[in-house]
Amino acid sequence: MFTSVKDVRKALETAKNIGLVPTMGALHAGHEALIQRARKDSEVVVVSIFVNPLQFGPNEDYTRYPRALPRDLEICERNGADLVFAPSVEEMYPLPELTFVDVTRVSEHLCGAFRPGHFRGVATVVLKLLNIVQPDRAYFGEKDMQQFAVIRRMVQDLMVPVEIIGVPTVREADGLAISSRNQYLNPAERRAAPVLHRALREAAARMRSGERDVAKVREAALGILNAEPLARLEYLEIVDPLEMQPLSTISGPARIAAAIWIGNTRLIDNEEGN
Amino acid sequence: MFTSVKDVRKALETAKNIGLVPTMGALHAGHEALIQRARKDSEVVVVSIFVNPLQFGPNEDYTRYPRALPRDLEICERNGADLVFAPSVEEMYPLPELTFVDVTRVSEHLCGAFRPGHFRGVATVVLKLLNIVQPDRAYFGEKDMQQFAVIRRMVQDLMVPVEIIGVPTVREADGLAISSRNQYLNPAERRAAPVLHRALREAAARMRSGERDVAKVREAALGILNAEPLARLEYLEIVDPLEMQPLSTISGPARIAAAIWIGNTRLIDNEEGN
Repeated sequence: MFTSVKDVRKALETAKNIGLVPTMGALHAGHEALIQRARKDSEVVVVSIFVNPLQFGPNEDYTRYPRALPRDLEICERNGADLVFAPSVEEMYPLPELTFVDVTRVSEHLCGAFRPGHFRGVATVVLKLLNIVQPDRAYFGEKDMQQFAVIRRMVQDLMVPVEIIGVPTVREADGLAISSRNQYLNPAERRAAPVLHRALREAAARMRSGERDVAKVREAALGILNAEPLARLEYLEIVDPLEMQPLSTISGPARIAAAIWIGNTRLIDNEEGN
Repeated sequence: MFTSVKDVRKALETAKNIGLVPTMGALHAGHEALIQRARKDSEVVVVSIFVNPLQFGPNEDYTRYPRALPRDLEICERNGADLVFAPSVEEMYPLPELTFVDVTRVSEHLCGAFRPGHFRGVATVVLKLLNIVQPDRAYFGEKDMQQFAVIRRMVQDLMVPVEIIGVPTVREADGLAISSRNQYLNPAERRAAPVLHRALREAAARMRSGERDVAKVREAALGILNAEPLARLEYLEIVDPLEMQPLSTISGPARIAAAIWIGNTRLIDNEEGN
């Protein structure tokens, strides 16, 4: 494991065909899918583990976000990672950070509307990681649909020489998207949580079977979500897959995405609609 | 000369030890000093020529900014550049640009206060050029002191693997800092223009001979500037050399910088004070 920027750069100096899996640790089956995909594509697989303070709001879960480095290292090794980069906050932010990357428009709606500064923090740290590791490809989970769209657009706009690859969401048997935050759920909350996937799947099915009315598609999902007393809706939107703009009618490609709170835990998920 | 990102990347694929001189063209002796310095340090010298619309305000001189490509190419060749990259606006911004790089604090005062969005435009395009060319070093003129500080901090914060090198200002015999915008000056304005350097040099001399009072140093410069009827002051500030923050007293390193208007032409310059 490497903790210093200098050392990881040195270790990768002559490396070719690098795949990077940027993570915040607390690795789970979703991350394993990313590492496995990187392994298939790459000569050198790098996993970064860094809980990035810049992407957490002042009232968010930065301090209680799960950390599990020894277990993470085992998971990296078991899935074929060649190198783990796990820097400290001081290593990633040696000076007060004055430079920020904003991906406007794509960051505007969905999570961006409820987590001010979140995608600025994500874009900034991912660009730093890309500059440190200089990978040929970087892998992101499609569960974090807006994050994926933000990073893909950042890389296009800034002409970063890297390919951004999305990997399908990994789910529990009952449909719940696997997330490091699922461990915050108590047993009753955990039983309620799959309602999110059920609601989005139903709405997506309506779109795929020809429903073009956004209000009707939303209603189908809201009916299911509202039937679960433990779930509180944050947002539910149908957006275009590139710029994450809410659609007024469904004509081209569409995604449906939602965030709900179950107790003190915020869950997000999305489905391809059209 | 290359105009496409793809072609320039291909041409540099196996290049080692690249020096990049990013310019907006209309090359002059200041640029020649940059190219010559890059030539001394590098195996491959790349000069980019791109008048970047993103760094011009709506009422600024984007459309009338001097363009002189054939002459620029001769100057590049004569000074030993290996490759010129002169993309179109469409090549640099193939999509509507949604991604912006802000270097807060460093961009706040001096030109940043009078040209909103200017340094965002500069930082964004320079990062794009660095991502396209992937040089080992990039060269900037010290005449544009705040630009240099912004880019140096951007590269530090974002951990871009490049060294940023400042090259001393080149001056006319009468002290006027050489700038592409000097050609806007009519003969009377041109005769008045050296007042800027004279004023800054006088203020810097006071600092170097021990004056610690910012107000007195400013007064010395303002006295000289105010004596020139063709010059209108935009700003005159004494700042720290790293974050470009106005100093209330001169204790450590200090720079004095000013912008003046002579007719419709804006001139900037700076001096090392302490």
